[in-house]
Amino acid sequence: MTSKAVVLLSGGLDSSTVAYIAAKQDNQKVYPISFLYGQKHFYELECARKVAESLGSVQKIAHVGLRELVKSSLLGSSDIPSDGVKEGEIPSTWVPQRNAIFLALAYAYAEMLGADWVYGGMNAIDYSGYPDCRPEFLLAIEKALNLASKRFVETGKAIQLVTPLVKMSKVDIIKKGLELGVPYNLTWSCYKGPDELKQACSSCDSCRIRLEAFKKLGIKDPIKYVKEKE
Amino acid sequence: MTSKAVVLLSGGLDSSTVAYIAAKQDNQKVYPISFLYGQKHFYELECARKVAESLGSVQKIAHVGLRELVKSSLLGSSDIPSDGVKEGEIPSTWVPQRNAIFLALAYAYAEMLGADWVYGGMNAIDYSGYPDCRPEFLLAIEKALNLASKRFVETGKAIQLVTPLVKMSKVDIIKKGLELGVPYNLTWSCYKGPDELKQACSSCDSCRIRLEAFKKLGIKDPIKYVKEKE
Repeated sequence: MTSKAVVLLSGGLDSSTVAYIAAKQDNQKVYPISFLYGQKHFYELECARKVAESLGSVQKIAHVGLRELVKSSLLGSSDIPSDGVKEGEIPSTWVPQRNAIFLALAYAYAEMLGADWVYGGMNAIDYSGYPDCRPEFLLAIEKALNLASKRFVETGKAIQLVTPLVKMSKVDIIKKGLELGVPYNLTWSCYKGPDELKQACSSCDSCRIRLEAFKKLGIKDPIKYVKEKE
Repeated sequence: MTSKAVVLLSGGLDSSTVAYIAAKQDNQKVYPISFLYGQKHFYELECARKVAESLGSVQKIAHVGLRELVKSSLLGSSDIPSDGVKEGEIPSTWVPQRNAIFLALAYAYAEMLGADWVYGGMNAIDYSGYPDCRPEFLLAIEKALNLASKRFVETGKAIQLVTPLVKMSKVDIIKKGLELGVPYNLTWSCYKGPDELKQACSSCDSCRIRLEAFKKLGIKDPIKYVKEKE
């Protein structure tokens, strides 16, 4: 029997890798979900759609009005910083409760579809220090969302949260993705969104982590950057 | 020092009572949040606004595109049932993960405001059997949302979830509300929304529970019904 998996797909490097990991499971059909939540640019949604299509899946887009509720540089409340993240500091790109909101919506969608799995690309190694990427949060939210689930209450069968990248370095994520044929040329990580030439900024936290990982692997990142860091 | 409390306010009997409970705490300012999530009627949002105004508070409305993700009779996927709820059955009005989504958004808003409390009207006694009203869910989601919180990570200070009605009967909730001066004439509980005379249906699960409680108290429910049950 085919099993169903909902995948949080932002169109970034991590979530695209996870979509491919989920899709390569035997007899598993992937249902990508992307979020329109007030982010500064929508280019990542287009990237997510292309990655979904590369897997023969149809992207579901869920709307959440987060910009009206919170402040974050990712939602346009301030400029995206280009000067890196200080050790132990949560940066301005952090969006309060973003993963909790996305996961709750993904669990709702999974319940409707009868899916057994929700996959997410959360990563607690080469990341920006967001508290909602930590394993302790992920365990707690998985438990909470199952306690809210009709299926779990009625059958005892949990919808499992799968975060295969949570303890992987960015280098290992890319290695894994290349093995699986992830089309990284279709992905987008830059917080700032593309310039008129569809180039990433190369200086935001997300670009820097991504570029550094490709550099370590001795592979050219297939997307375009404003000024490549060699 | 004034403390801040975010209150989930749907405009119904329970959440309006909770808003008054929160507002009567010493030196506490209430920030009501209501949700536009694809529900069949918006009349409850208008009621919520009036209840908020009666407290001198401004209603915040958050948008969530739930209708595109899940099926529920409350979202118009089917008719609202008028024949009661079977014992041990979760009714068609249930919206998957609704409380998890609402609470995650409320916690995001609370984090932005610097609020110490999130109040919700969840009730596990005279209710419709929704799994996300149970105390075990509420404890689990409170824990998860704090683990996702920058404030909690940085200061160890949790945003507390307060659900004063969770083990109260509907009769006791109304008694409490009347003591506090809750304007029940401004509230709305009917799942179906008002008819052209702004009357509630009196037959949906929510109307029946509400009417029965007022009847037990020997008090007339101040809102209008299609056919009053005496």
